[in-house]
Amino acid sequence: LFIQTDMKEETGDLAERIRQGDRPALARGITLAERGGDDALQLAGMLQSNSSCSWRIAISGPPGAGKSTFIDALGMILISRGHRVAVLTVDPSSPLTGGSILGDKTRMERLSREEHAFIRPSPSGKQTGGVSSGMRESILLCEAAGYDIILVETVGVGQSETAVHDMTDLFLLLVIAGAGDELQGIKKGILELCDLVLVNKADGDNADRARLAREELQRAMRITTPPNGLKGHTPVLLCSAMTGTGMAEVTDRIMAMMETARLSGSLQATRKEQEIRWLEEMVTDWLFREFLAGTDFQTRKSEVLKQMRSGGTDIFAAFRQLISGKAG
Amino acid sequence: LFIQTDMKEETGDLAERIRQGDRPALARGITLAERGGDDALQLAGMLQSNSSCSWRIAISGPPGAGKSTFIDALGMILISRGHRVAVLTVDPSSPLTGGSILGDKTRMERLSREEHAFIRPSPSGKQTGGVSSGMRESILLCEAAGYDIILVETVGVGQSETAVHDMTDLFLLLVIAGAGDELQGIKKGILELCDLVLVNKADGDNADRARLAREELQRAMRITTPPNGLKGHTPVLLCSAMTGTGMAEVTDRIMAMMETARLSGSLQATRKEQEIRWLEEMVTDWLFREFLAGTDFQTRKSEVLKQMRSGGTDIFAAFRQLISGKAG
Repeated sequence: LFIQTDMKEETGDLAERIRQGDRPALARGITLAERGGDDALQLAGMLQSNSSCSWRIAISGPPGAGKSTFIDALGMILISRGHRVAVLTVDPSSPLTGGSILGDKTRMERLSREEHAFIRPSPSGKQTGGVSSGMRESILLCEAAGYDIILVETVGVGQSETAVHDMTDLFLLLVIAGAGDELQGIKKGILELCDLVLVNKADGDNADRARLAREELQRAMRITTPPNGLKGHTPVLLCSAMTGTGMAEVTDRIMAMMETARLSGSLQATRKEQEIRWLEEMVTDWLFREFLAGTDFQTRKSEVLKQMRSGGTDIFAAFRQLISGKAG
Repeated sequence: LFIQTDMKEETGDLAERIRQGDRPALARGITLAERGGDDALQLAGMLQSNSSCSWRIAISGPPGAGKSTFIDALGMILISRGHRVAVLTVDPSSPLTGGSILGDKTRMERLSREEHAFIRPSPSGKQTGGVSSGMRESILLCEAAGYDIILVETVGVGQSETAVHDMTDLFLLLVIAGAGDELQGIKKGILELCDLVLVNKADGDNADRARLAREELQRAMRITTPPNGLKGHTPVLLCSAMTGTGMAEVTDRIMAMMETARLSGSLQATRKEQEIRWLEEMVTDWLFREFLAGTDFQTRKSEVLKQMRSGGTDIFAAFRQLISGKAG
């Protein structure tokens, strides 16, 4: 059931091409990962080996905070320092608009022309497996293809932040100075996830307001961040991705935080715990695929729903009927 | 598997006592419902019949909005008009405090002494099945015991609001006038769920600020509520649960909204759709109980986790090992 021979052959080829850094192959692999299921796991399993020397960085922030410009600028600095950068996007496909609210790769103009960058456009349309569907596998694939910095972009308005926090090493929040209320539009829970907060667009006429926003965020951080002997309060830095002001310092800080985490062993320990939660999700997903997505169950379900809608059965009888194929 | 004879006997007794309005029996039944599993479903199934003539009202709001005082006042008015009122609480047991953040039944001083009121104290400690564990079944039980108004209290800070919205007929949000920023502390998504917003503590020195808060909320409602030909924008009313000002009007408005929903048939249609989603949750819960909670699986899992922590296996091998008992 789990491994079909001919499929294994083909997945093996794809894995090899990804390992050689073949970009179209990487793109196809990520599509496979997003689709989920056995093939996705098999491919990720083949490519997981050398992922321990990469850094996974989440970049969150409300719409309008300038995430694309920031990633463009950060990515260019990282490449100039010898890194290879992959950008992945978690898109909480809005139920209202029905499509991507993030746009595509053209948002990162400089980075998208770089040989040492790989930008994955946001998936279009609705994903079946939740906002983070295939993201962990996609990260492994990018790492196998030789990218050592994986930037995972997420919009700080949905429920995807916790999921992304659970598959990255460092969580950045990008904000801008607002009209007197800096925390509007940022979900309170996100502050607790953050390792670093950046007030972007700290340039020109906006510089003073950005400084005030920074102070307010630092106050908020002292309230929301639980006292942590070793870690201290989450730092808040100023930058302007557009003019480049502060970007080198931000990059230095990110790299220093990552290096500290790696040297202390906390990076490895966190990843181990993340893997254990991933394993649990894998089993749950598999259970859904095997049972709930089965033809037998689907047929029984549409029959039962028809009866329920017509008032021909109550919910408890419907439930027993639905599970009767398995529970006997 | 699903129905054991002796258990059926005992559950049948409990159901009968609940139907007779026996309060300790109702309390025991709700404890059973919160625990979940087959017994809970069986009991709810026995008692589901006459639930169509009750109203289920969600009352949400940030801590400090005066929800307890409001429910106390609303409940007393409803009882004086001949209703029987049950109060249930969804407690998103804080992972930080580890316990109930809501306190207990003594918060509703007048209502807790009434014969025609049943107040369920918030469950203490952590629930295994999420914030809404057993809430739907508990509602059915209260209805079977003769309570025709079910007030479901929820703290407007967690992720429980959507779940509660999906098991009630009307969603009220209680807020108070803040210091210039009325929407602080209210999650944006909650406004979209609301059928009615109440600015509480509109009394004394606070009356003017409450009026301003109402105007701001009305503006916010015009922005966040999608245009709805029939429904219009969510109304915002002023009240003071403590002094009683506006409480009769609020009660009238609630009852009028419920009556309109019932007469138009939208109440019944919504409940049918809610039941279908409940059915899906039931099947999912059952699947988890049957497979993930099984001794076989648990034994295999702790063995695999030990191997993973020691570095003796990778996540993909661990996954195959975990599901091998079922997938072969």
